[in-house]
Amino acid sequence: MKFYFIFLINTIIMNSCKLYLILSISFCFFHINTNAQSSKIMGFSEESAKTQLALEADFDKMLNADNLDEWMKYMTARPHHVGSPYDKKVVDFVAAKFTEWGFDVKVEKFNVLFPTPKLRLLEMIEPEKFTASLKEPAVEGDASSTQIAEALPGYNCFSVDGDVTAELVFVNYGIPADYDELEKLGIDVKGKIVIAKYQGSWRGIKPKLAAEKGAIGCIIYSDPEDDGYYRGDVYPIGPFKNEYGVQRGAVMDLPYAPGDPLTPGYGSTDSAKRLELNEATSLTKIPVLPISYHDALPLLKALKGPVAPEQFRGALPITYHIGPGPAKVRLKLEFNWDQAPAYDVIATLKGSKYPDEWVIRGNHHDAWVHGAADPISGLVALMEEARAIGELAKKGILPKRTMKFCAWGAEEPGLMGSTEWVETNQDELRKKAVAYINTDGTGAGYLGAGGSHTLEKFFNEITQVVNDPVKGVSVFDRRNAAEVVRGGQKWAYYNLSALGSGSDYSPFFQHLGIASFNLGFGGESSGGEYHTMYDSYELFKRFKDPNFQYGIALAKVAGRTSLRLANAEVLPFEFQHFTKIVDGYFEEVTKLADKLRKEIETNNKMINDGLYALAANPNEKIVIPQTKDEVPYFNFAPLQNALNELKKKSTEFESASKKEVTDAKKIQEINLILKDMERSLTRDHGLPRRPWYRHHIYAPGFYTGYGVKTLPGVREAIEQQNYVEVSEQINILGEVLQDYSKQIDRLITIMK
Amino acid sequence: MKFYFIFLINTIIMNSCKLYLILSISFCFFHINTNAQSSKIMGFSEESAKTQLALEADFDKMLNADNLDEWMKYMTARPHHVGSPYDKKVVDFVAAKFTEWGFDVKVEKFNVLFPTPKLRLLEMIEPEKFTASLKEPAVEGDASSTQIAEALPGYNCFSVDGDVTAELVFVNYGIPADYDELEKLGIDVKGKIVIAKYQGSWRGIKPKLAAEKGAIGCIIYSDPEDDGYYRGDVYPIGPFKNEYGVQRGAVMDLPYAPGDPLTPGYGSTDSAKRLELNEATSLTKIPVLPISYHDALPLLKALKGPVAPEQFRGALPITYHIGPGPAKVRLKLEFNWDQAPAYDVIATLKGSKYPDEWVIRGNHHDAWVHGAADPISGLVALMEEARAIGELAKKGILPKRTMKFCAWGAEEPGLMGSTEWVETNQDELRKKAVAYINTDGTGAGYLGAGGSHTLEKFFNEITQVVNDPVKGVSVFDRRNAAEVVRGGQKWAYYNLSALGSGSDYSPFFQHLGIASFNLGFGGESSGGEYHTMYDSYELFKRFKDPNFQYGIALAKVAGRTSLRLANAEVLPFEFQHFTKIVDGYFEEVTKLADKLRKEIETNNKMINDGLYALAANPNEKIVIPQTKDEVPYFNFAPLQNALNELKKKSTEFESASKKEVTDAKKIQEINLILKDMERSLTRDHGLPRRPWYRHHIYAPGFYTGYGVKTLPGVREAIEQQNYVEVSEQINILGEVLQDYSKQIDRLITIMK
Repeated sequence: MKFYFIFLINTIIMNSCKLYLILSISFCFFHINTNAQSSKIMGFSEESAKTQLALEADFDKMLNADNLDEWMKYMTARPHHVGSPYDKKVVDFVAAKFTEWGFDVKVEKFNVLFPTPKLRLLEMIEPEKFTASLKEPAVEGDASSTQIAEALPGYNCFSVDGDVTAELVFVNYGIPADYDELEKLGIDVKGKIVIAKYQGSWRGIKPKLAAEKGAIGCIIYSDPEDDGYYRGDVYPIGPFKNEYGVQRGAVMDLPYAPGDPLTPGYGSTDSAKRLELNEATSLTKIPVLPISYHDALPLLKALKGPVAPEQFRGALPITYHIGPGPAKVRLKLEFNWDQAPAYDVIATLKGSKYPDEWVIRGNHHDAWVHGAADPISGLVALMEEARAIGELAKKGILPKRTMKFCAWGAEEPGLMGSTEWVETNQDELRKKAVAYINTDGTGAGYLGAGGSHTLEKFFNEITQVVNDPVKGVSVFDRRNAAEVVRGGQKWAYYNLSALGSGSDYSPFFQHLGIASFNLGFGGESSGGEYHTMYDSYELFKRFKDPNFQYGIALAKVAGRTSLRLANAEVLPFEFQHFTKIVDGYFEEVTKLADKLRKEIETNNKMINDGLYALAANPNEKIVIPQTKDEVPYFNFAPLQNALNELKKKSTEFESASKKEVTDAKKIQEINLILKDMERSLTRDHGLPRRPWYRHHIYAPGFYTGYGVKTLPGVREAIEQQNYVEVSEQINILGEVLQDYSKQIDRLITIMK
Repeated sequence: MKFYFIFLINTIIMNSCKLYLILSISFCFFHINTNAQSSKIMGFSEESAKTQLALEADFDKMLNADNLDEWMKYMTARPHHVGSPYDKKVVDFVAAKFTEWGFDVKVEKFNVLFPTPKLRLLEMIEPEKFTASLKEPAVEGDASSTQIAEALPGYNCFSVDGDVTAELVFVNYGIPADYDELEKLGIDVKGKIVIAKYQGSWRGIKPKLAAEKGAIGCIIYSDPEDDGYYRGDVYPIGPFKNEYGVQRGAVMDLPYAPGDPLTPGYGSTDSAKRLELNEATSLTKIPVLPISYHDALPLLKALKGPVAPEQFRGALPITYHIGPGPAKVRLKLEFNWDQAPAYDVIATLKGSKYPDEWVIRGNHHDAWVHGAADPISGLVALMEEARAIGELAKKGILPKRTMKFCAWGAEEPGLMGSTEWVETNQDELRKKAVAYINTDGTGAGYLGAGGSHTLEKFFNEITQVVNDPVKGVSVFDRRNAAEVVRGGQKWAYYNLSALGSGSDYSPFFQHLGIASFNLGFGGESSGGEYHTMYDSYELFKRFKDPNFQYGIALAKVAGRTSLRLANAEVLPFEFQHFTKIVDGYFEEVTKLADKLRKEIETNNKMINDGLYALAANPNEKIVIPQTKDEVPYFNFAPLQNALNELKKKSTEFESASKKEVTDAKKIQEINLILKDMERSLTRDHGLPRRPWYRHHIYAPGFYTGYGVKTLPGVREAIEQQNYVEVSEQINILGEVLQDYSKQIDRLITIMK
């Protein structure tokens, strides 16, 4: 109880607006989490918890926001993309720091395919001439934005070369639902160049789907409704995207596999056999280029054809039309198809008790340009954690398990530094990795956290004891207040979101099955700088986390996560949260099947009854949709039985956990099994048509990119209406979960 | 059955796209309405129904779209607002036509207050100079738009004179929810000039509420998101509002009372005592001016202060800010406060059997400018109905009841012609009126109909036998197809919407309790011409109902409605539909109370728990809301008991109706009671704070304007959190419905 009141009193002192804080004491609705108040920590005995809490207090005291500021300033002083001179400087800087703090540092180099632009041309040739500027001019008050010479211009990495000329079609976000809508309107993109808005999916989905539909080129732009003046004042007045900002980014087929396209599934070491460029399956099939809304406006304005459906329209001052044409554009792209070095800085602090059990913490260092927010704001937090832990180690306070701090290279083109390192070291990682904790930049506001649900209960404790730097209540309470005020339900504990893809946790988590986290603050630092020329130190200091107070809060959360995992006597995994979550996913997929069945049935009836034809506006062209195959009822029993078993075993495990295990050998045995639990949710054959993704509970969506699909085998088979595969995947998932229950049973047997 | 197949075959011949129509035969899901197939019509004996159907067939054959075209062309040749030279021409034209067709025609003149602009000035004086153009330039291909000299410019009728200068505040739609939002942001409009978007409520609500909140001036503009390029191509390329279009319109306090502000509640005849201008309560309290989005853009662009919440933002290419200021504007308005003649053309065809029972059909003739769509498209349909009925009368086929065809004057400034006529003739109307059928322009697409639910079953039969002119199925089936395709439920019968206000049915329906309809087609003729310089014949012919085929369909629907009511042996009212509807409204208001109770409870708890403060972004100013009084539980029993009685009586009436009444005296008695049924839903004291509105089931919302509030006494008391009044109104409504049941009981007694 003491701790709780300390931080409330603290709040009153810290915060000027006293009235509501007094109210928040008087009527405080937050549940009193006894774990958080007492000296109990999951995985620790009462005695060792005291030591750990003292360590954490020391750790907190050592954190210094000025360091974050200074390091960010240094590392963002020049553009530092993969292969750039300044990226090497950043690597050397980080490596030197880690060395200075007492870590055993290795810089591992992987040569990866990294195309950069040689020629970029986008012009409209009909009905009038227009050449896209493809430039992000310098803005007042931002010296970084003047460093054009060293910067990569706006481009999509892994677009193929091409020179295509065709009529333009506006495809909204270019996701499956949009093509369904276009089909209804009788619009075909075959032989056309599509222009798609950013967002709605990961960018790589847009050219992938466009090519599947027969388009020969793809332009992606940021519409001001999603990312520009509609959202708020634009840079440099405010942080939002000005008319010239261009979002760079990779467009490889990430949901198929990340990493170097020339070494799929294995490390791109010097000796590795590389595919020829034309064998690399994850490049785009068509040329693709990102542009600003300044450059998009004349193109969209020149389109005719049907007025775009409401969900297609953005915030440009035009009537959005779909085309095709009369706008006819030429897109000519040529790239240098060179290899570039991805440097991973790996700093190791050997565990005093379990050196062969690894807790890994990572954030990438490469940026698209200066990358103040993405990735440096996260990297400086990681470095400050490492510095504090290194200083503590110098005083003899060593972690029980080995801790590895990693600054990844070549994340931006496709999680390459991390993926190649994971692929290269996969055997050792499978044996030794306990968990991976990722960040990829941070902002200000609320704690956002995704991760393995076997660690949700563990992580919840941490969110209750780290305070929001502005409001003085725990980051849990702050997040919870936001959830409730926005109309959500009160959280009983911190709800981890499920991990999709888009950052370096993906190879650890989805390829190897290493329990992972992805952490960051956000919600009060929105802007439009992402992957543009304007993600600068100047912008960050004005609009993101000016005093690095949320950077420090992140270091506290991520630092505790690493330290507790490194020092726990019994690894703090448990299975009831996980079981509840998977049960929820199961309910979702059964509802999804029911919903799809009902939709197709209703729709088929409407088609057969001629209602589409009757309802249609005679002045507009519409194509009456075709009826679809009805959705059969599926045998979900194998999955239900597995879930039932899982519920039983996770409850038994919970009971067994109540009794403290003191026998060191038994603890060792238990930890060895616990460490590997997440691995048993993977299968070597992976998911259908994408074997690299081996986790059967979480995967990025095949047609969403970053966005997660839980129970992906079953869910995507339903979504893609592949009904034979649904049954196959139900069986596989049933087996995965049955095996998982067997592992829990092994644990219970030892614990008894 | 025959009729049904005839129109399906007809469809195949008429329509080029044969495939889906064959499908629609094969799988046709529309229920076979035996009423529609057989010669049964509600209110008619089998024998007389045959005569009626033959009459309707003759009526249909006489309708000629060319007449509608010719008359519209004549009547829209020049601007014809209230008091204009050409409005008198239109009146003479209509009167001459009615006379030619054999009607007894009277032109009744009411002199009503009709302010017109003398001076309109809107300028921004800080932070930069800008003077609003306040002009709608002529457009290519539209000769009407060149007739500036005779046209009224953009203004809001019944704005007071004023010369105000103040900082500007953007208030979204200027409705209650928007001011709640502004309060949260700490923004006060006291002493400011507000700028509000059109839509979200009837326009008159905006200055009313702004004045209540302390604003000293009000500007209303059409945002392109709601009414401009965001919706579609703008005029003259397409029919949507171009940057210069200005929506004129009245801003008197219509939800308080329509009609001449100087003669509230009684006719503004020559001899009537008139209030002084400063006694007229329904004028605005502050000056108000409508402007185009061309004129609004510089003003909105110059605002700073908080970025507008998402629901405030429109489609102008700016970041929407709220202010106040730094934009400072001057609004100077002066009007000619003259009286002008409202001419009502009343054409009477005496009933052969029941001359003292009146079926009244009306549409106004005055326009804001040329008024092709509003109101002439409806007036020409009404005239064609009158012509056909007149021609039939000349052949000796006379209606049993008296039919009155009315072309109302001065509708635009506030339903004046109709209101003054109704107020003047209220005693006679209370005795004689059976029903009023209103139109107010029409477009193309689906039948839209609102009205008294005691006539819903009757009206449903008509919708089943009039065909959509393009698709060849009944207008019911067409509307139903649209409902289902748009995700709605299949209709068992045509669902009449509840009537609010905004057209000439209001005095009949809500002031006197005369059963009413409001009819029109729409959904496939959208545009931005409403109340602008561009509602021209030219635009109508290009984008609305070019061949007047929906005008003819409207004549068929409205003509049948009038003719059946005029010729029915027993007036076709029944009470089961009405009871079901009122029961539904009752459920809504109880749910509303529960929802409000829950919301206030939840919100109070959030305030007391300090969650707003915790969730708030420290970089943004927010005001923590105050807790509100909890919503008590209400005694709904008087209403529930009344509803229970109503259910019993309406069921008994239905049973009694199965037996045909043949005794002429009894029929006469029944009809006399039926005619007055709607009247017994009114009370002389009217609704709280607005005695003019006497109907206790339907009223326009006090803070919505046109939008209906059903069970208005109870519902608005809940919404306005006036809990004492809720109970009072429950009791009043209970008594109204108990009395209503007693009337039904009288009918049952006679029918037995």
